[in-house]
Amino acid sequence: MNAMRGSARKFAEWVWGMRSARTRVGYLGPPGTFSEQAARSYDPLGRHVPFGDIESVVRAAEKEKIDEALVPLENSTEGPVTVTTDLLLHRTDLQIRREVILPIHLCLLTEGGVDFDEIRVVYSHPQALAQCRDYLARRLPKAEAVASLSTVRAVDDMRIDGPSAAAISSMRAAEVRHAFVREGQIEDIPGNRTRFVVLAQRDHEPTGRDKTSICFDFAADGPGTLYQTLGELANRGINMLKIESRPEKTSLGRYIFLIDFEGHRTDRFVAEALDRIRERASSFKLLGSYPKASDPAP
Amino acid sequence: MNAMRGSARKFAEWVWGMRSARTRVGYLGPPGTFSEQAARSYDPLGRHVPFGDIESVVRAAEKEKIDEALVPLENSTEGPVTVTTDLLLHRTDLQIRREVILPIHLCLLTEGGVDFDEIRVVYSHPQALAQCRDYLARRLPKAEAVASLSTVRAVDDMRIDGPSAAAISSMRAAEVRHAFVREGQIEDIPGNRTRFVVLAQRDHEPTGRDKTSICFDFAADGPGTLYQTLGELANRGINMLKIESRPEKTSLGRYIFLIDFEGHRTDRFVAEALDRIRERASSFKLLGSYPKASDPAP
Repeated sequence: MNAMRGSARKFAEWVWGMRSARTRVGYLGPPGTFSEQAARSYDPLGRHVPFGDIESVVRAAEKEKIDEALVPLENSTEGPVTVTTDLLLHRTDLQIRREVILPIHLCLLTEGGVDFDEIRVVYSHPQALAQCRDYLARRLPKAEAVASLSTVRAVDDMRIDGPSAAAISSMRAAEVRHAFVREGQIEDIPGNRTRFVVLAQRDHEPTGRDKTSICFDFAADGPGTLYQTLGELANRGINMLKIESRPEKTSLGRYIFLIDFEGHRTDRFVAEALDRIRERASSFKLLGSYPKASDPAP
Repeated sequence: MNAMRGSARKFAEWVWGMRSARTRVGYLGPPGTFSEQAARSYDPLGRHVPFGDIESVVRAAEKEKIDEALVPLENSTEGPVTVTTDLLLHRTDLQIRREVILPIHLCLLTEGGVDFDEIRVVYSHPQALAQCRDYLARRLPKAEAVASLSTVRAVDDMRIDGPSAAAISSMRAAEVRHAFVREGQIEDIPGNRTRFVVLAQRDHEPTGRDKTSICFDFAADGPGTLYQTLGELANRGINMLKIESRPEKTSLGRYIFLIDFEGHRTDRFVAEALDRIRERASSFKLLGSYPKASDPAP
């Protein structure tokens, strides 16, 4: 009996050790969101901790209540991600440690096996409804589209409404909320994907297949300022992957530039280029170096 | 009597002449949207014709059923404007004739004079609800946020619900739908604005304060391709206003670049630079030259 107890305690300790060793990855919840899907594909063995909004995920990682904050950066279907860019540029010192690219597929869900011509209402986030406009006109011409706060809430709204209601949501939401997937990949335009970034106290060590994200602006505007700055990369043979200019909040007509390029900040030429750009810019921020994600087929 | 009839007919003809002389500006309806607000501020005397979606506005202008298509291009609060960019880049020959920048303000509306602590439900598009999150927590902590398909539909949803419901919408929607504006500019983060473009068969003649929009991509990727192309502008003293790279739909890892710069395509140096860029690029499209809009104070 005592032996049993001893081994049970040891087992519990071992399990507890495993649990506490698992990385705590915060995401924009509830379970069933595309953010949760991204967290699961990024770290299948991690502890996935849902938060109510993007800012809360980031703040929790700052306070080390979680290890990593997985947040959508580009092209999301679940609301604007200007929130993330704004946090990254102005309001957090966390760094980009990883990126995750998730294909975004939408499904038609129902609660039971209702016939398609008996479906009277389809719930979803307005953006998801818009993305399935042609599908709905073709397959459910008599159903009314009704807005929900999110694609996950749409499943709840469908359930409250009754058996003649449907929802447009993710495969994962169907799983989490125990609904039936009636048709998959119903989005009108294929190839939709969201790029998530994993923020942490520190960025990633070099892997040989890395990229680096920076942002900067200039006090003095004029032809060629950006051109000369990009020359610091081009003249060192550094391949730029993405460039974006965003209006600055504080001063009209001024822009902040966001650039992704190949290489790690510890690479010699990259480190040199970063120093030169820092000198030229009026403000400069290194967002992090991290392994390049492979872009999955849509 | 005959004289009366004669002058009545002349008056009718005169009115009809005025009516038909008015520019027909298509926009994303219904009346009360931010697109309608933009159309009214752009051409107060024009005929503003609402359409159900952005693509329909563009198609109507192509078929000359309307003279101009006013469509949101950047930073909208009424859904994704990737639709507009995609149309501009790949699927229309219309050109940008003007740009309009509209500050986006949100208001709290009710049907009657209900007390704030009696408001139980607030309807709006999920993006608008998200933009007023702090406001709602502060002013209406007990009210439930409920999704509507658009900020205009939110006013109808509020009305159907009854006197204890409110809506977050635009000042113009309150006017069109005869609702009470209870508080204005309730968005949490000020300075939100949307840039609209007016598309037409032809772009604008030079005014001396113009900008030009182009897009292009490269068949061969590599460090410096974009840099050298930007050199065609910088070396001619042409000031770049905006740059953006977007993933191409057809091929992974390839980007299309969108650039706005100062000057008109008929200016000598601009024309020269455009020729050189056209030579360097694998595909190239001139989106139009048009007067620079003044950015209104938020």
